[in-house]
Amino acid sequence: MKNLPLAILAGPVLASLIGSLQAAEAWQPATTNQPGREYPRVDEKGRVQARVLAPAATSVQLDIGAVRYPLTKGDDGSWIGNSEPQDEGFHYYQLNIDGANVPDPNSRYYYGANRWGSGVEIPAKDEDFYALKNVPHGELRETYYHSATSKSIRHIFVYTPPGYGKDPGKRYPVLYLQHGGGENETGWGNQGHTARIMDNLIAAGKAKPFIIVMENGHDTGKAELPKPPEGTGQDPRSRRFFGHFQVFENVVINDLIPFIDANYLTQADQAQRAMAGLSMGGMQTRAITLKHPDVFSAIGVFSGGSIKTAEIQDMDAFKNKVKLVFFSFGSKEQPGATTAKADAEALKKAGVNSHYYESPGTAHEWQSWRRSLHQFAQLVFQD
Amino acid sequence: MKNLPLAILAGPVLASLIGSLQAAEAWQPATTNQPGREYPRVDEKGRVQARVLAPAATSVQLDIGAVRYPLTKGDDGSWIGNSEPQDEGFHYYQLNIDGANVPDPNSRYYYGANRWGSGVEIPAKDEDFYALKNVPHGELRETYYHSATSKSIRHIFVYTPPGYGKDPGKRYPVLYLQHGGGENETGWGNQGHTARIMDNLIAAGKAKPFIIVMENGHDTGKAELPKPPEGTGQDPRSRRFFGHFQVFENVVINDLIPFIDANYLTQADQAQRAMAGLSMGGMQTRAITLKHPDVFSAIGVFSGGSIKTAEIQDMDAFKNKVKLVFFSFGSKEQPGATTAKADAEALKKAGVNSHYYESPGTAHEWQSWRRSLHQFAQLVFQD
Repeated sequence: MKNLPLAILAGPVLASLIGSLQAAEAWQPATTNQPGREYPRVDEKGRVQARVLAPAATSVQLDIGAVRYPLTKGDDGSWIGNSEPQDEGFHYYQLNIDGANVPDPNSRYYYGANRWGSGVEIPAKDEDFYALKNVPHGELRETYYHSATSKSIRHIFVYTPPGYGKDPGKRYPVLYLQHGGGENETGWGNQGHTARIMDNLIAAGKAKPFIIVMENGHDTGKAELPKPPEGTGQDPRSRRFFGHFQVFENVVINDLIPFIDANYLTQADQAQRAMAGLSMGGMQTRAITLKHPDVFSAIGVFSGGSIKTAEIQDMDAFKNKVKLVFFSFGSKEQPGATTAKADAEALKKAGVNSHYYESPGTAHEWQSWRRSLHQFAQLVFQD
Repeated sequence: MKNLPLAILAGPVLASLIGSLQAAEAWQPATTNQPGREYPRVDEKGRVQARVLAPAATSVQLDIGAVRYPLTKGDDGSWIGNSEPQDEGFHYYQLNIDGANVPDPNSRYYYGANRWGSGVEIPAKDEDFYALKNVPHGELRETYYHSATSKSIRHIFVYTPPGYGKDPGKRYPVLYLQHGGGENETGWGNQGHTARIMDNLIAAGKAKPFIIVMENGHDTGKAELPKPPEGTGQDPRSRRFFGHFQVFENVVINDLIPFIDANYLTQADQAQRAMAGLSMGGMQTRAITLKHPDVFSAIGVFSGGSIKTAEIQDMDAFKNKVKLVFFSFGSKEQPGATTAKADAEALKKAGVNSHYYESPGTAHEWQSWRRSLHQFAQLVFQD
């Protein structure tokens, strides 16, 4: 093209070149990338563009949101392609290279969908609430304790707020916060951005400082799974589910809470103890808190169903004990969202301090849960 | 084969079948695998056997220790194969699928070699010292602080020993512990097993409880890199190296140590402050501690060279200030190991409390550094 008169570049050709440059600028490396990696990239529409060097491959796909998008091979042996727009927030994904499902070597790795694998962050209009800022920072503490219930050493994370321990006389409420099915105790701290959400809320004076404890809701260790009672049905999955939930309840009530109260600066009483969880963790929260009203005074269920007034046997006793009930869903989660909203309203009419939050434009995914924690944290322990 | 008389199975055929069964039993899932994954497996010889489903691939390799081992395709579309024996301990590795270098979807992921990628653990005769045990556990705390030097928010890990904070009057010595080139602040906590090593030593009464701080020795943030002095040479890499080291020194001395002393229960004086590091972190340790004898009283250099008596300008002043000098290498690291041993002996002759440790049968790899920390922790802060 070097002998073409410049004038020919004017008009459509020049416009096309400028358009390409602008399009290139609109793609930004995802914040979930490994240090220094240009791909995957995301654009303002929420599309994900992946690139991988696979010179001898015959087929490469980007697999995100249960949809596979084909990548196209370039002259340099790299494959590139992009997805349809994704919801704001965090998504698990993987690559498929000649039939092999593998993590993208360019992304950081997160635990979800029962595996450590790739994740990609789509910028969100409200991402400021989980941004890393120059505010006082709490700590995300990784530690272990022995559980008699599971007959094993359990791996937990404990968030402690900024300034924790400076005044040894100051004690804090505790939120027990659970992950979803196929996830583990790392989810809320990694892709959930729990520490950043809390640090920012506390710096802005919008939440009371409290401790957050994150356990593994799947890990039954060496515990024998209790048999379900008569009438549970014969479906092996639901019977196994029952056993798992029962072990987890015993771990939380008999081992975890005593360990936390013995080793952290807690206000070790029902009024200053809450439980919340997402999806499966929300179901566990409902089951455990309804069974133990003397242990927890606040209940948060994120994308994990809701509680109907009919489920509460003694409403006066419930209102006396439970100071906050919070349900949330992503707006795309139907019919759960509509049901939860109605259930929250019914509880409010019955005199319960109940709240419903709906995350706009999101589904059963982390952006719904980050926003839910952000809302719940501003409501809990306010008495 | 169903009509073959049983007798034919006797002799060589039966021996071969039994041999196969025994061989299968000798392969064990690596402890670094994702939960529930059977592969990669390791055997008593230290071989790694990888398996990946890649039905449409034409070539799959296991890439470990800078050597690629071909995998063989089975009828089910999976590829399987194993490496030559590896040293005891931890190794970074990856798979190559039709020319694409990707993490193994079955392993957990670790940061090293400038990337998050697969790691595999080869059982070691001495693995008990970093095993997870039912002893009192410290905490590995993830937090952030603002550095004026790097004009950025920095990500650090702080190990606090069991019982830390229970008696707010009890204060602890501090070890600043650095990773190697291509690694980051997560290395000592993840593949280094720092918390387990310390918890086990403290439980056995073999080490004094102390705090360990892990920074990122590469991250210069938004700092302008200082220019090297005249005579540094014109090699761009060594000039850039100089700038990076200078920024890191300023971060440690001016920002990190003041932050730690202001926010943790430290004994904030030279006698109770040590620095150690592996490889590049060892070089940084040498440079920073020799320049700041009023800040650190103990020096640990793991696979990062050594200090010659001639480098110490005022030996009396050095002996007065520095209470411990520790060099270590893997026995396969030559000539560094031999030189460091001789240098440690020369320092001892000059009256310095110097120690040399050699990790048997290992090279420039994490098993050398886990063992080095295990040794160093028993020697430091003993005055």
